[in-house]
Amino acid sequence: MHLSFQSLNGFTRPLARLIDQFERLPGIGPRTAQRLALYLIRQPKEQIQALIQALQDAHTQVGQCQICFHLSVDTLCDICHNENRNSRLLCIVADSRDVIALERTREYKGRYHVLGGLISPMDGIGPELLQIKTLLARLEKNMIEEVILALAPSVEGDTTSLYLARLLKPLTQVSRIAYGLPVGSELEYVDPVTLSRALEGRRILE
Amino acid sequence: MHLSFQSLNGFTRPLARLIDQFERLPGIGPRTAQRLALYLIRQPKEQIQALIQALQDAHTQVGQCQICFHLSVDTLCDICHNENRNSRLLCIVADSRDVIALERTREYKGRYHVLGGLISPMDGIGPELLQIKTLLARLEKNMIEEVILALAPSVEGDTTSLYLARLLKPLTQVSRIAYGLPVGSELEYVDPVTLSRALEGRRILE
Repeated sequence: MHLSFQSLNGFTRPLARLIDQFERLPGIGPRTAQRLALYLIRQPKEQIQALIQALQDAHTQVGQCQICFHLSVDTLCDICHNENRNSRLLCIVADSRDVIALERTREYKGRYHVLGGLISPMDGIGPELLQIKTLLARLEKNMIEEVILALAPSVEGDTTSLYLARLLKPLTQVSRIAYGLPVGSELEYVDPVTLSRALEGRRILE
Repeated sequence: MHLSFQSLNGFTRPLARLIDQFERLPGIGPRTAQRLALYLIRQPKEQIQALIQALQDAHTQVGQCQICFHLSVDTLCDICHNENRNSRLLCIVADSRDVIALERTREYKGRYHVLGGLISPMDGIGPELLQIKTLLARLEKNMIEEVILALAPSVEGDTTSLYLARLLKPLTQVSRIAYGLPVGSELEYVDPVTLSRALEGRRILE
């Protein structure tokens, strides 16, 4: 009878299970998982409920914009929904975090298209797994004057930029944000000023 | 109408709320909070439910042992419940994490008493806020041959050890784990071998 409450690695079962759940999260090691679990079981019930509610709401309510595939609660995201944004300018990014990083610059007034990743043969990610068909459909359906490629300066980013440039140049003008970003960095962590310069300094691909 | 879904720092509301909840946790900065939230909303429903269940279970089920104040699901913890443990030997620690660290050494076969902190006049923590009355009650009620003070080698640990040594020496033999631990370290992070040596090398206080 007492067995069901036996210790796991010194922790009582429910605590061990919570630690285990935290350890599954990216970048959370055993020490951090322990610290978080021990912290949380001492917090008032209201804080736990707020965390649980936030988890549930974010998971059930946040989906993807049906046009640009940015994270969105509604069918259309705030940017696609906003008629003041320039619908003839399209910025291609790998991830929703990159949209958020670019929005922080307050420089860009066009729309986005979120690929959902980068071409990476090593990881078995080919163009068919990215939002490229939907991108082509947007270009067919709408008058797009310029497509800006805003992908990280990495092997995968370069591969994807090259692939998209070849694919899109027959259809519209294609540019790429300037290499103001240090090579090897990730777009989402670049400061807004550097990102602004990279946007301004973009060059038409020929 | 659309206002209720407006972006907060570029994130949709439910996501911003989840990030905010994560940022309240100790040692979780804005970047980690974002990473965790964006990771979790992409996981299958089952994983979110498992995390929520673990949080709820740990928070509602884990309490304190009524004898030693170690974390416990039952009224008595596994250690107080275990009749093979030496009930005449009592190890005093600041926190439940220290019990777990000491249990990992597999050297100690006595019982524990968890103070719930250390005396710290700077933080307004006096002896009355710690489990010291309950410790005295245990000593009165039970035949304790030795009390081992296993507190961190810090100002607060030393203050608390001194205070307890004076209080307990008229009642029983009082020892202190050896300074094998590097000064400034925290007991829970010391490796089991060093902790074992510190236990072996304990000296009777005179």
